[in-house]
Amino acid sequence: MPSLPNGRVIFNSVPEGYPIPGETTVYDTSQTIDLDNTALDGGFLMKTLEVSVDPYMRGRMRDPSIKSYASPFIIGESISGYGVAVVLRSEHPEVKKGDLISGMMSSSGFVINSALPTGSTGYQNYNICKTLDSWLAKFENPHNLPLSTFIGVLGMPGKTAFMGWKEHSHAKKGETAFVSTGAGPVGSLVVQLAKMDGLKVIGSAGSEEKLKFMKECGADVVFNYKTSKVADVLKKEGPIDIYWDNVAGETLEAALDAANINARFIECGAIGDYNSGKGVPVRNISRVFEKSISLNGFIQYRLEPKYLAEFYKTVPPLVASGKIKHREQVFEGLETVGDVILAVQKGQNTAKAVVHIADV
Amino acid sequence: MPSLPNGRVIFNSVPEGYPIPGETTVYDTSQTIDLDNTALDGGFLMKTLEVSVDPYMRGRMRDPSIKSYASPFIIGESISGYGVAVVLRSEHPEVKKGDLISGMMSSSGFVINSALPTGSTGYQNYNICKTLDSWLAKFENPHNLPLSTFIGVLGMPGKTAFMGWKEHSHAKKGETAFVSTGAGPVGSLVVQLAKMDGLKVIGSAGSEEKLKFMKECGADVVFNYKTSKVADVLKKEGPIDIYWDNVAGETLEAALDAANINARFIECGAIGDYNSGKGVPVRNISRVFEKSISLNGFIQYRLEPKYLAEFYKTVPPLVASGKIKHREQVFEGLETVGDVILAVQKGQNTAKAVVHIADV
Repeated sequence: MPSLPNGRVIFNSVPEGYPIPGETTVYDTSQTIDLDNTALDGGFLMKTLEVSVDPYMRGRMRDPSIKSYASPFIIGESISGYGVAVVLRSEHPEVKKGDLISGMMSSSGFVINSALPTGSTGYQNYNICKTLDSWLAKFENPHNLPLSTFIGVLGMPGKTAFMGWKEHSHAKKGETAFVSTGAGPVGSLVVQLAKMDGLKVIGSAGSEEKLKFMKECGADVVFNYKTSKVADVLKKEGPIDIYWDNVAGETLEAALDAANINARFIECGAIGDYNSGKGVPVRNISRVFEKSISLNGFIQYRLEPKYLAEFYKTVPPLVASGKIKHREQVFEGLETVGDVILAVQKGQNTAKAVVHIADV
Repeated sequence: MPSLPNGRVIFNSVPEGYPIPGETTVYDTSQTIDLDNTALDGGFLMKTLEVSVDPYMRGRMRDPSIKSYASPFIIGESISGYGVAVVLRSEHPEVKKGDLISGMMSSSGFVINSALPTGSTGYQNYNICKTLDSWLAKFENPHNLPLSTFIGVLGMPGKTAFMGWKEHSHAKKGETAFVSTGAGPVGSLVVQLAKMDGLKVIGSAGSEEKLKFMKECGADVVFNYKTSKVADVLKKEGPIDIYWDNVAGETLEAALDAANINARFIECGAIGDYNSGKGVPVRNISRVFEKSISLNGFIQYRLEPKYLAEFYKTVPPLVASGKIKHREQVFEGLETVGDVILAVQKGQNTAKAVVHIADV
């Protein structure tokens, strides 16, 4: 087979505010690959099928001298993230042609404080990897679910919701939970887990269509944060015992004001903060001691050793049976990734953003 | 016996910034009391011996329509707080002349969200109370410690340090703890508890003399926050696994930046916030999820059911033997209370502020 283009989404420059498609990231087709003859050096060649676009990716678009929980993207190299791929050829003893692989599409994984990628892999049509590990693993699909599911409700976002809730909610029947970005891939599963635990659930999102989805997920009270003041809603519907925080900023302030004694806050993300250049202030942190609140930060991958087996036992059957609702907005082709990244940062996507690249 | 003046410290007006002696509080001697004949109505008459001045009192100097963890002071009535008294006369079946009483010198206790005091008791020479409860109780003094000890290292501040540390530190030998206001009545005991647990301890305070006391308490690294930048010290001496927060604001920001993965923050107070009129912002709350930090707010009285017996078993013998160091700055007479309140808010007191009123 002759050489084919190996399309790539390249990290081009560190953005100051929102990432700019075509400037922050650039789609490039100059590299080619000979699928039959390219050297594998004991590794395996994968064709990328689906890639995920998630809010946390903004944090990787930084100066590599700044340390954080996820390694920075490297200028001139493909960006990386969660994806699904199929194996085309393999010299690896545990991997064979046709195997499905999911995880971090990067041979460097996602290691905290690592500034050094180990290879040119990532959001590109074809990747050669050397090893399987907890970041990149073979998977089975016994319920025949769409492959994109494995970067959504069965991937990082679903695991984030499940593991964060199990570890930190200490939910008791009859309590009240508030979930920000409650229609998103993480928040919508949190809403459903809270309802399964017998809680009253308040969810916020930014469009009528998202409010409708939160209702379908079982939320008791939904509101549009663009047209209602969070503080007003929580004053009426609270006090709250649990707050699932995906946004920080003013929403967190309102939740602190509306919290019950001994409330648990689950700090999952700060989308309101990612593009501000400097942190959005929280001015009422005193509520934390006044009300004996706990704020619990977590990163999903640090909880995997404790909860991964329980997650795979619990969630896939509920997804297959339709008891857990989830939804995706599918974009087509690597060339859309830059636009999708921006849409996700601005909350303009209508559901879990999935980019479909190829079929098996 | 003829009527005597019953000196009182009256709450006169809600301050905007720092409390102003003579304006926020006023010392008044217009009320008199006949110790032999005043009606007890089944209660008991106490002579106040010692009263405590503590940072949290600023929060009670508010508009009573604002709810918080401690009931507000009422304009025109005596302020209240922790004290030690001796019983002069009693009609109460469980109380007799000569009994020592400690706790909240107020018949209304300190009930969260309560805006209504039930009687004119508080920081005055003589109080008549009706009942004993968890807020006001008889105590024994088997180690013959100075009575002021029972509003200091054996009172609310000591209990705060002990119970907060036991509940939230999850200290492991070899870890590093940072204690703000480490020379204060709470912080200095935290420093000593952390050393007993085998930790490296960094302490901050605002004078050379306070740094010296932290060293005597065993702190490994001490610094003056007025002349050194917290962020610089923590960068050099951290990362930190535990932060005992008494101040919030910029110090909390620096601690978040210098925290290790899975760090525990114990949110005990926010002296930097009490007099600002509006909350002092925290701009890097994202560190909480990035580093899987937990912020644990608490109020000592809510932990009493769990830890009070252990506290009384553990701490008094260590104080009596000198193994736990503590110190007091003693002021004389109710007329000084307004000035002492201001000094404590500004950190100008040199040790636990105790106001001596009378001897047994």
